[in-house]
Amino acid sequence: MALTVSKTPTGSEYKVKDISQAVFGRLEIELAEVEMPGLMSCRTEFGPSQPFKGARITGSLHMTVQTAVLIETLTTLGAEVRWCSCNIFSTQDHAAAAIARDSAGVKAEEEYEKSGKLPDVNGNENEEYRTVLRIIKDGLLVDPTRYRRIKERLVGVSEETTTGVKRLYQMQANGSLLFPAINVNDSVTKKKFDNLYGCRHSLPDGLKRATDVIIAGKIAVVCGYGDVGKGCAAALKRAGARVIVTEIDPICALQALMDGTPVLTLEDVVSEADIFLTTTGNKSIIMVHHMKQMKNNAIVCNIGHFDNEIDMHGLETYPGVKRITVKPQTDRWVFPETNNGIIVLAEGRLINLGCATGHPSFVMSCSFTNQVFAQLELWKERGTGKYEKKVYVLPKHLDEKVAALHLGKLGAKLTKLTPAQAAYISVPVEGPYKPPQYRY
Amino acid sequence: MALTVSKTPTGSEYKVKDISQAVFGRLEIELAEVEMPGLMSCRTEFGPSQPFKGARITGSLHMTVQTAVLIETLTTLGAEVRWCSCNIFSTQDHAAAAIARDSAGVKAEEEYEKSGKLPDVNGNENEEYRTVLRIIKDGLLVDPTRYRRIKERLVGVSEETTTGVKRLYQMQANGSLLFPAINVNDSVTKKKFDNLYGCRHSLPDGLKRATDVIIAGKIAVVCGYGDVGKGCAAALKRAGARVIVTEIDPICALQALMDGTPVLTLEDVVSEADIFLTTTGNKSIIMVHHMKQMKNNAIVCNIGHFDNEIDMHGLETYPGVKRITVKPQTDRWVFPETNNGIIVLAEGRLINLGCATGHPSFVMSCSFTNQVFAQLELWKERGTGKYEKKVYVLPKHLDEKVAALHLGKLGAKLTKLTPAQAAYISVPVEGPYKPPQYRY
Amino acid sequence: MALTVSKTPTGSEYKVKDISQAVFGRLEIELAEVEMPGLMSCRTEFGPSQPFKGARITGSLHMTVQTAVLIETLTTLGAEVRWCSCNIFSTQDHAAAAIARDSAGVKAEEEYEKSGKLPDVNGNENEEYRTVLRIIKDGLLVDPTRYRRIKERLVGVSEETTTGVKRLYQMQANGSLLFPAINVNDSVTKKKFDNLYGCRHSLPDGLKRATDVIIAGKIAVVCGYGDVGKGCAAALKRAGARVIVTEIDPICALQALMDGTPVLTLEDVVSEADIFLTTTGNKSIIMVHHMKQMKNNAIVCNIGHFDNEIDMHGLETYPGVKRITVKPQTDRWVFPETNNGIIVLAEGRLINLGCATGHPSFVMSCSFTNQVFAQLELWKERGTGKYEKKVYVLPKHLDEKVAALHLGKLGAKLTKLTPAQAAYISVPVEGPYKPPQYRY
Amino acid sequence: MALTVSKTPTGSEYKVKDISQAVFGRLEIELAEVEMPGLMSCRTEFGPSQPFKGARITGSLHMTVQTAVLIETLTTLGAEVRWCSCNIFSTQDHAAAAIARDSAGVKAEEEYEKSGKLPDVNGNENEEYRTVLRIIKDGLLVDPTRYRRIKERLVGVSEETTTGVKRLYQMQANGSLLFPAINVNDSVTKKKFDNLYGCRHSLPDGLKRATDVIIAGKIAVVCGYGDVGKGCAAALKRAGARVIVTEIDPICALQALMDGTPVLTLEDVVSEADIFLTTTGNKSIIMVHHMKQMKNNAIVCNIGHFDNEIDMHGLETYPGVKRITVKPQTDRWVFPETNNGIIVLAEGRLINLGCATGHPSFVMSCSFTNQVFAQLELWKERGTGKYEKKVYVLPKHLDEKVAALHLGKLGAKLTKLTPAQAAYISVPVEGPYKPPQYRY
Repeated sequence: MALTVSKTPTGSEYKVKDISQAVFGRLEIELAEVEMPGLMSCRTEFGPSQPFKGARITGSLHMTVQTAVLIETLTTLGAEVRWCSCNIFSTQDHAAAAIARDSAGVKAEEEYEKSGKLPDVNGNENEEYRTVLRIIKDGLLVDPTRYRRIKERLVGVSEETTTGVKRLYQMQANGSLLFPAINVNDSVTKKKFDNLYGCRHSLPDGLKRATDVIIAGKIAVVCGYGDVGKGCAAALKRAGARVIVTEIDPICALQALMDGTPVLTLEDVVSEADIFLTTTGNKSIIMVHHMKQMKNNAIVCNIGHFDNEIDMHGLETYPGVKRITVKPQTDRWVFPETNNGIIVLAEGRLINLGCATGHPSFVMSCSFTNQVFAQLELWKERGTGKYEKKVYVLPKHLDEKVAALHLGKLGAKLTKLTPAQAAYISVPVEGPYKPPQYRY
Repeated sequence: MALTVSKTPTGSEYKVKDISQAVFGRLEIELAEVEMPGLMSCRTEFGPSQPFKGARITGSLHMTVQTAVLIETLTTLGAEVRWCSCNIFSTQDHAAAAIARDSAGVKAEEEYEKSGKLPDVNGNENEEYRTVLRIIKDGLLVDPTRYRRIKERLVGVSEETTTGVKRLYQMQANGSLLFPAINVNDSVTKKKFDNLYGCRHSLPDGLKRATDVIIAGKIAVVCGYGDVGKGCAAALKRAGARVIVTEIDPICALQALMDGTPVLTLEDVVSEADIFLTTTGNKSIIMVHHMKQMKNNAIVCNIGHFDNEIDMHGLETYPGVKRITVKPQTDRWVFPETNNGIIVLAEGRLINLGCATGHPSFVMSCSFTNQVFAQLELWKERGTGKYEKKVYVLPKHLDEKVAALHLGKLGAKLTKLTPAQAAYISVPVEGPYKPPQYRY
Repeated sequence: MALTVSKTPTGSEYKVKDISQAVFGRLEIELAEVEMPGLMSCRTEFGPSQPFKGARITGSLHMTVQTAVLIETLTTLGAEVRWCSCNIFSTQDHAAAAIARDSAGVKAEEEYEKSGKLPDVNGNENEEYRTVLRIIKDGLLVDPTRYRRIKERLVGVSEETTTGVKRLYQMQANGSLLFPAINVNDSVTKKKFDNLYGCRHSLPDGLKRATDVIIAGKIAVVCGYGDVGKGCAAALKRAGARVIVTEIDPICALQALMDGTPVLTLEDVVSEADIFLTTTGNKSIIMVHHMKQMKNNAIVCNIGHFDNEIDMHGLETYPGVKRITVKPQTDRWVFPETNNGIIVLAEGRLINLGCATGHPSFVMSCSFTNQVFAQLELWKERGTGKYEKKVYVLPKHLDEKVAALHLGKLGAKLTKLTPAQAAYISVPVEGPYKPPQYRY
Repeated sequence: MALTVSKTPTGSEYKVKDISQAVFGRLEIELAEVEMPGLMSCRTEFGPSQPFKGARITGSLHMTVQTAVLIETLTTLGAEVRWCSCNIFSTQDHAAAAIARDSAGVKAEEEYEKSGKLPDVNGNENEEYRTVLRIIKDGLLVDPTRYRRIKERLVGVSEETTTGVKRLYQMQANGSLLFPAINVNDSVTKKKFDNLYGCRHSLPDGLKRATDVIIAGKIAVVCGYGDVGKGCAAALKRAGARVIVTEIDPICALQALMDGTPVLTLEDVVSEADIFLTTTGNKSIIMVHHMKQMKNNAIVCNIGHFDNEIDMHGLETYPGVKRITVKPQTDRWVFPETNNGIIVLAEGRLINLGCATGHPSFVMSCSFTNQVFAQLELWKERGTGKYEKKVYVLPKHLDEKVAALHLGKLGAKLTKLTPAQAAYISVPVEGPYKPPQYRY
């Protein structure tokens, strides 16, 4: 889920499911604008000076109503924008239609930069990834220097997912990073807001839309107690579930305990719990041998990163397993030995995007305002040498500015430091107020 | 929302929207059965003896998946069942289709007993009620003794809503009650479960499906702090809203305060809040003059009883007001003076049924098991004179039994009283454990 | 914990620990007055007319700062007051001293009415009760008609504990009730406030003062999920404990589950939990054989009624057990087999009174305003025959008045019903607003 | 609140209030040991090798029961220890007595390093600081090279408060830091545990012990929403208060809002609120002109750093103000104009230490295990040049180890990464698991 800013023009073209949904899309976009004060402030502050004049921005990011507000903010600031979705279940067709009809072109765009030899399409366990490799391979067969040329034009990338950022740091570490990158994920107003408050909202939303099952009284296992896990565990607990956390990290585990949540292993609770959720960003968390031991109609879902947190491959290929689709994204898989079924949501992909509508506008406004600031910075500093082929984070004063742009909507009033107070704690009166290591 | 048990046969016939949805309906009914242990236990315990042999039960109750499980429980116990929905937005077409295809007939049935002179169809402010009166009037013109004959066959009624029960007690008080009635609403396992835990689940569900708006950070006004209001206020607060309660009753008001919630009047907060919810069971709570003062895109909804908690009539007839339907049940009403819009959900009717799928199966299993027990009692005691033309509540041991039937699903283990302990607190070892005035 | 109103005068005399603490007591009484708006309103409303002129009121109730405000309210209304404490650990010496110095006499008064044959002092397992019987016996040996004469003068009793009320109903049932009694315990503003909000405040207060142990992360077992148990479980959970409930009543058990709390038996968790609390109002809940199985330094305490909820006798007489008093009310009992100790608080008596200062003034103001209203009613109606030798509850309008008197202090504003709304729900505009069976 | 490790011996001597309290102190120390698994593990792991052989460790830190366990851990590892308290109200006399009787000497030790010209004792607004300067001045008059000689022997310092660390970074920045320092405050297991969970426990403890006032229903203003503010706001809200936050930092403000808490200025709410708490680490937060506007018996307290968060000087010198000491650390200050009083706790110093017993053992075990690890590192690496005259933080693997040592006590079980999973997220199987910028 990254934005890439580069230098040459794109045509206007689109591939969307149903252009007639544009009217509905536009209505929801207008509602979302009221909930996205950060992006709307960017339009007001930067729109007149057209800072993205000449910039082409390509996004690979869930094509939702909120993303539509981001796209139109970028175009309002002068950019030419191309977009492709990054998840097969997350596209909101009405939002895509409205964008396609009214503004920038939206088209599936290739995501990966690979050069030299052709990718080994079959040598990967993940089917989706094999498809990506196949597209890249086919492109390279037609035009062997394609990605090299793209690289030349590329000014920089801003990335907002934990997993994506991890890959960027790996590329930086092994010298394969070909462009400056801004890690937007680690802005406080992204990571602590989108991951925590966004999931707190959208996990129960997805669970309820998909299953209509009461959460109160149920035993729910949350695998992982990072920001996403914390948000989900809080939501489940507040809904009346008895939450159990699994963790590898002793610090996060101790946080769970201080929050009143037991920390056990999946094996300890697999046959007792009613709801299983992965939030880890890792793979192979819930395996088919776990699923076999679960209670009848246990719910299994993922809000971490990819569908490989759950062993979907193992489930699909389990001998004699039967799949009953209750409705799209809600499947009951019945094991032949016990005739017990488990209910897998969104085919193991992100439940909040597959079964609900993703994070709400307000938190996405925080995340996306970070994206806008990052893109503004990359584009403004192109050619100045300020950013090398490394991964950067946004300076804290911009992080604080993102927050500040969202306070008015909620009627908040900040206290102002006096100069004497600012001197006493050694910060500027106007901020930033915290040292870099501050954890919020 | 009442069940009526009487003595003569019905034919099999139905009016449903789309019979082809029966397959989907059946799948969801099967999932719901796993979540409704009370009803399924009734099937096991009473099914073999067919206690409803010869009984005809008519229900007027939201035609949802959960209601389908109730209907099929009644038929499993030997009853002939007819059903009509009681709310224009609450019918789940797939559930209705499955019931229509597979079991008892479902048909709109008249709800009211009125004799003598014809009703004054136009003398009522509520449009829906005028329709009911018109149907009754038309029926009486065709067959003037119709309701008298129905009354003869009628064994009794069980009723599960606060508003319905209030009407029954009024009829009892003024001598117009023509049959025995069991007030199921005041069973603890109904009133404290359905109203409280049901709304706690389904209010945020409705809000999110209808608007996708984040609740965290918002100011939400909950009108009324009875069981429904308590459940809704808890849900909103847990979702991160700042909740403000309005109340007429000082005891409920003090409860809100002890729960950390300010108690103010609607006038105090009408121009500041983001979400307004009525839960009162009374009328004329949010008037059009309130709505005019609200912030742009304030959300207005009702989870109390009828749509007259919100002044829909005043809104619809406000000069120059513009209605923009974002999607079904989500309307933006724009006032001409300010160009501000407010978002009204489910046209002022019950948000959880209009914008989501109503209460979840587990709590409805509690409510409906009370209904089954009440109907069993009425039918068994027909002709014995045990029940006069009065309103009764279920005995506490049945209330406790409803709860007991739902514990196993959640893995609970009860402690058993020793005889010495039972003697010490003067209760039977096997219950009931509490005096009648106990409030839970 | 009862108030008794009767007709002849008492002398002024007292037995308090240290009269020099009267200054400190007076300061705390003055602070408490600000937190007890119900009682202070009674002084304003009723003081001028001196309604208790001629009445002698005897109280048997924890002699705390809050009780001092009650006593002085009664005297302000014209009563002569005698007081005795009802628990060996609950007396606050400075409050007793202030009352002794400044107002009514305070003296240990006999609590029980028994006539005819002398009590069998040794035939009871409870040492404290044996002492009571001994005092009664000694009194009767000196003056055989003593209690008969007291009975003649007695106008009535108001009682505010669950256990006390249960005894009154037993006496009513078996015909041994010799006076009218008002059950103040079942006023909503007593039972749902004092028991629930009072314990929610004072349980963690007692635990922390006695042990300084963090509650977060601990496993806490709450025996009983009535109003006291609900308040305590909420307090423990909010402090970060993992709470487990034991229950005999399936309805209360299902409430616990809906609140996210597992329901198990003591046996299931006795060797895992860190904190054990009894709230049942029953006896023999935690036995010495349970205590033996507990973890080292497990905390055992009671906030129910008497110290027989915990098997203190079994513990004290356990062969080889060693008692180490860390500080008053905090004892470590070490079992010889394991050398493990358990920490018993307040010697098994009420932890909130033994280890902290009891309920806070604000909730006691609710409870005590009920007491004042009950005493006013009993005294006003003496000789009119309105009250027979039965147990009554206060009418709902007085319950609502108690609440109303406490709203202003918290800045609350009530909404007023319009006459049309009042008619619509069939209640008087000025209340009472709820039917008798309403549970809040 | 720092530990200093250096090289030459100390004599055994002490100044404690009452040595006879040593027995009680020892009992409480033994209870605390069970709650401090991190420190006890250090004794087991490091005790045999006596790593502090030859090291003299001086601590300036609240002399509590928990500190006693730290001191005895250091001596168990071979150190000679001297201690002085750092707050006039925080010393627990029984803990000090036990330490004095049984182990290392405890003596008031000077805290500041200053060289060259004598300090200007009167040129500082803070009376306590003036006392410190006076002692330093007097010492230098007697022995002008005293601090220079101390500096020579000094190996390093570990510091655990936000304020203390801030000063160290200032000294590093301006070149005046004379020794290596380890910032223990920014260990996750200190800052996010002690500040957050510790205050969440000890703030309500202090409030209740000092005032016995119910928190439910009250309006509480929390100045500052850092870790301490977050813990305190959570505690107050869970106790039923309506919490309002004041903040200067927009990010922390937005966090408060997402948690459902309004953000306003002190001026907005000063005349409405019941409880005021400072948590900022800054000065001049609540001034006397604020206090004058408060409601009668409003409670004012501080859990931040120094007593200058509250304008105690302004209050003390306010013309005509009257101070009534209800009990030690609980003063009612009455303003002459209104005759309204406010209740100031702990004379404006840390309420949890002044009015209660500070943080509970379990969180202090986390903080102090960080201290032990820091001291071990400083002493082991003395003379190796690994640490320059800079401020360091502990490496993440030690932070994770601190957490891991505390899991067993709470019955937690960690999940183990497989090598494939570890490779997938690019971390070692045994940790550390998170990048440095991770915020938890």
